[in-house]
Amino acid sequence: MEFGAGIEFSTLQKQRSLYVPQLPPCLQGSHVQVEFGDATTVPDPLDAESIKRSFPLTYGQPLAGSVPPLLCPAEAREVISGRRRGGTAQCREWQASSPLPHPDSIPRRGLPNGGTPPSRPKGRRRVGAVFCGRQSPGGHNIICGLYDAMKLRNPKSTLLGFCGGYDMLGRTKDQITSKEQVNAALNACQTLDLNGLVVIGGVTSNTDAAQLAETFAEAKCLTKVIGVPVSFYGDLQNQFVEANVGFDTICKVNSQLISNICTDALSAEKYYYFIRLMGRSSSHVTLECSLQSHPNMVILGEEVASSKLTLHDITKRICNAVQSRAEKGKYHGVILLPEGLVESIPEVYALLQEIHVLLKNSVSTENISGQLSPWASALFESMPPFIKKQLLLSPESDQSAQLSQIETEKLLAQLVETEMEIRTKNGTYTGKKFNSICHFFGYQARGSVPSNFDCDYAYALGHGAYHLLAAGLNGYMATVTNLKNDVSRWRCGGAPLTAMMTIRRLLHGLGTPSIGKPSIHPVGVDLKGKSYGLLLQNAEKYLMDDLYSNPGPIQYKGPGSDSKTICLCVEDHDYMGRLKKLQSYLDKVKTSVKPGCSQEVLKAAVSAMAYVVEILSLMSPAGTGHAYHPLEDTSANM
Amino acid sequence: MEFGAGIEFSTLQKQRSLYVPQLPPCLQGSHVQVEFGDATTVPDPLDAESIKRSFPLTYGQPLAGSVPPLLCPAEAREVISGRRRGGTAQCREWQASSPLPHPDSIPRRGLPNGGTPPSRPKGRRRVGAVFCGRQSPGGHNIICGLYDAMKLRNPKSTLLGFCGGYDMLGRTKDQITSKEQVNAALNACQTLDLNGLVVIGGVTSNTDAAQLAETFAEAKCLTKVIGVPVSFYGDLQNQFVEANVGFDTICKVNSQLISNICTDALSAEKYYYFIRLMGRSSSHVTLECSLQSHPNMVILGEEVASSKLTLHDITKRICNAVQSRAEKGKYHGVILLPEGLVESIPEVYALLQEIHVLLKNSVSTENISGQLSPWASALFESMPPFIKKQLLLSPESDQSAQLSQIETEKLLAQLVETEMEIRTKNGTYTGKKFNSICHFFGYQARGSVPSNFDCDYAYALGHGAYHLLAAGLNGYMATVTNLKNDVSRWRCGGAPLTAMMTIRRLLHGLGTPSIGKPSIHPVGVDLKGKSYGLLLQNAEKYLMDDLYSNPGPIQYKGPGSDSKTICLCVEDHDYMGRLKKLQSYLDKVKTSVKPGCSQEVLKAAVSAMAYVVEILSLMSPAGTGHAYHPLEDTSANM
Repeated sequence: MEFGAGIEFSTLQKQRSLYVPQLPPCLQGSHVQVEFGDATTVPDPLDAESIKRSFPLTYGQPLAGSVPPLLCPAEAREVISGRRRGGTAQCREWQASSPLPHPDSIPRRGLPNGGTPPSRPKGRRRVGAVFCGRQSPGGHNIICGLYDAMKLRNPKSTLLGFCGGYDMLGRTKDQITSKEQVNAALNACQTLDLNGLVVIGGVTSNTDAAQLAETFAEAKCLTKVIGVPVSFYGDLQNQFVEANVGFDTICKVNSQLISNICTDALSAEKYYYFIRLMGRSSSHVTLECSLQSHPNMVILGEEVASSKLTLHDITKRICNAVQSRAEKGKYHGVILLPEGLVESIPEVYALLQEIHVLLKNSVSTENISGQLSPWASALFESMPPFIKKQLLLSPESDQSAQLSQIETEKLLAQLVETEMEIRTKNGTYTGKKFNSICHFFGYQARGSVPSNFDCDYAYALGHGAYHLLAAGLNGYMATVTNLKNDVSRWRCGGAPLTAMMTIRRLLHGLGTPSIGKPSIHPVGVDLKGKSYGLLLQNAEKYLMDDLYSNPGPIQYKGPGSDSKTICLCVEDHDYMGRLKKLQSYLDKVKTSVKPGCSQEVLKAAVSAMAYVVEILSLMSPAGTGHAYHPLEDTSANM
Repeated sequence: MEFGAGIEFSTLQKQRSLYVPQLPPCLQGSHVQVEFGDATTVPDPLDAESIKRSFPLTYGQPLAGSVPPLLCPAEAREVISGRRRGGTAQCREWQASSPLPHPDSIPRRGLPNGGTPPSRPKGRRRVGAVFCGRQSPGGHNIICGLYDAMKLRNPKSTLLGFCGGYDMLGRTKDQITSKEQVNAALNACQTLDLNGLVVIGGVTSNTDAAQLAETFAEAKCLTKVIGVPVSFYGDLQNQFVEANVGFDTICKVNSQLISNICTDALSAEKYYYFIRLMGRSSSHVTLECSLQSHPNMVILGEEVASSKLTLHDITKRICNAVQSRAEKGKYHGVILLPEGLVESIPEVYALLQEIHVLLKNSVSTENISGQLSPWASALFESMPPFIKKQLLLSPESDQSAQLSQIETEKLLAQLVETEMEIRTKNGTYTGKKFNSICHFFGYQARGSVPSNFDCDYAYALGHGAYHLLAAGLNGYMATVTNLKNDVSRWRCGGAPLTAMMTIRRLLHGLGTPSIGKPSIHPVGVDLKGKSYGLLLQNAEKYLMDDLYSNPGPIQYKGPGSDSKTICLCVEDHDYMGRLKKLQSYLDKVKTSVKPGCSQEVLKAAVSAMAYVVEILSLMSPAGTGHAYHPLEDTSANM
């Protein structure tokens, strides 16, 4: 292994390379037992049949959870490997006997891209791992956890990594879109004789993992596929997944910068700062950063989509805020917006869809404006030139717009400036001239040294992935729940990837290719959730009173070094805990009402249970139906 | 005092508000003695006469240094105050008996802007303080140091602050340009009956402080003026000043972000990141950040000015680097440039000068292009529209361009892209398409919570300022030297502001108003210095080998929390130490060669001293002359 050959590690990097992540008790020791729960279903009963049809071999598998002790450490030999764009099998090998990068170091590729799979003694187990999609702080620690879990069980184990992951392996952002790619992956795994493949990524990568698991099972390929939730967008959320690796770090780095800008605003007293944050179609990062740093205003994509706000509505809303503040003598402020905002504005979304269809039909960018519908064309022509150019960019592989390239913050700042000038001419605004400075925070955060939380979480997931593979499971995601509590109380396990799937029913839009395909979809900010509630509750104060809070840079020692995101701490995530509680209630009823109990008791039990069943049937699809999140219906990524 | 009324401090802010800065031994205890050294001169003997003529009352004063014990704590009563744009006397009062903001907290204005000076018992001493210019992390700690030093000597002391400083008091960026403003300041200080005024800022503010000191002395006003070196640009450097408050923090925050971008570049492998850093005309921030994070390439304004590189030269240089890296299969990279770069490019500087003269003559921006010299007009018209608009912005109050608003990074990225396309068409470049992402790091760093070093340094300067005032000195800057060593070895003292002044002799340019006015000028990166040497030495490795280093976020506890800038640590600053050494040599000669010594000894002494004097005379103005820093001659700020 030649990690970081020639690299000069900084003091902090050296220190972090010695960091020993905390491991929950259920993953400690040489014998970890995997326990199985009930068979799983999917969040929306309406989707169940379709998903079962698409994933006949991996649908409905039971939940898995780790409890010490047991599990055969016997003759396991694991290896990490992965794919590079399109499934080319380029491998790198980690010998358990050679030093592995310590958790949280930022190592770089040392081996030449290439190399051939190592020759392997018969009977040894082999595991591959691949980083998919965009880089996210903490991702490397999954490898470390996986590796350490393997090494603990058999020090001679070997680990292979396909090139294609962050700066450790390079990354790939392509999703698996064709049958050929799936087959290429199948061939690679069979050629390498892998027992397991660990797919590290977000919603798209884990959907791919589910597809690979099913295909592999069908082909009787011995490689089991395990997904791990890593995405700094924080949009891989469901019954089993409370947080994504990287989200904690990204939000902390961004909040530090936003807070610095807030201090700057308050010092200079003459600028409005428009800050756009990464996060794809969802606004989790923006919400969390708002809760950490208390900017004056924040506009979430989910709010805009839900209230069907137009560009004009949003502009007016900001102008009104500027005007109210001016009346109090304040000519500065900080406004946050997510990069996904632009797609959440109904008319802009429709325009983007038209543009993407024309681009797909190979219409050249110069001719697109002329071929838009009259209404879309009018909107397009009203835009400043820089935005026009950005709207004409080819969409991403998942058909969504290139959100990081569209400078919505500049568009809004310009629209607000124009509107304030109009109000000044009208005489409705009599304050000083509106001045703005625009920022886009993304690239400067996602390469950050990960926080303690992300290190610990990723490391536990890495261990968990090992145990799922060792238990012979296929098509599962490694999970850690109860995260808001101390590591000693974290619950580790796995849930079938199919149990996280939904099928989107498109309400509008022009022929996106993935309609109705079962997928793990990105989840937006829950406008009924506690985190958003907390923001709403303080919105007016934050707007007018400049209650900026500065969480400062991420600390690795001392106070605050073990802090977690506010969203994680205020939300009531304990799904697994509730499942357990439900089971215990059911058991109690069974034990209290055994044959031979009194007529009264039996009557009471029947009547009470009838009431429970009645309520549940009212909540079933035939009843009030299932509520889609507003954002999901307007997102391009369907 | 109503600091931060209603503010919710974050965990880190609460922790930092309890931080106790280290204080050098020479400032500890209740009795601190101020000791005087030799009378001072100025760096360039040619300037001496002019400066003496402009500052007859404050020129040539002796150096001052603190040694325990002594100094009368008796009946001192101090107060802090300041001015708001143009000298309006708006005050805020700090009662020593009420809790003062702890060092390093980020308090906000609580008192309404206004308030009247407190009624004051006869015989009490009063001091005012004002933050001038742009905000800089750590500035608040000067107030804390000043306050604590006063409180220690007399717990009943009162401190007043004029509104106009950061988020504690608001800030002002205007310099004192007119006689009226000086008189307004004089009146304010007399009305408030101040014994002292502490001016906290960079080169411009300290030049203003020197002017106020001279004017006050002339008017027999009792207010003594003390300057404190605070500027995150790091350009207030001279014999007596090794570092500026804020520079350490700014460089650390920026290096963190640059390093994150480096990791991102290495992960995505498809972008060149062009990052522009704040720093006005000098490139200290850019140099330090390069030394901390090891980006692939860095272009300093001082190099460009010294080598007279054109825009085309710089573009070609970057393109050659891109091409060399492509030949090694690398299509990513990180390139740093200072905001002052644009003014360092000779042809762009000349263009800016022409534009500023036309703007001064009230030519409207639409008509400027037509009135430029043919050559300047051709350059202007060749620029992309966004840069044209930015070049036409009105200059700052010091006649320099609005550097923060000119997106040089985008201009260069665009020029490189165009050139790479040409090379591709030529067939001279056969690699993949060049892609760039641009960043400007400035506002997100200067509001940061200050580093331990900045806290300690600022706090010591605050104490030092008190002692200079208590010793009745006027027109001094508080200084702390030997900074690269432990706080216990820091030397505290004061140097006359006039001893830091130079007079610029303009070699070219169109009528800037301040020609020949004695000023404390910004100092650029020394191309013969050790810090720049360190960069040069590694430039080729950094360019090709991606030896990125990540110092991580600023730490406040544990390893790295007491780190200092690399520039400070590698440079050999010890001017004060050498002055002492020189004195001891002279003393030794005197004691060894007393009347009555042997003829041989006397002869040897005379011959050796003749040699010393010969060397010194060769170095005098009549000899090889004085070398101007190349940047100084091309900077607009003269």
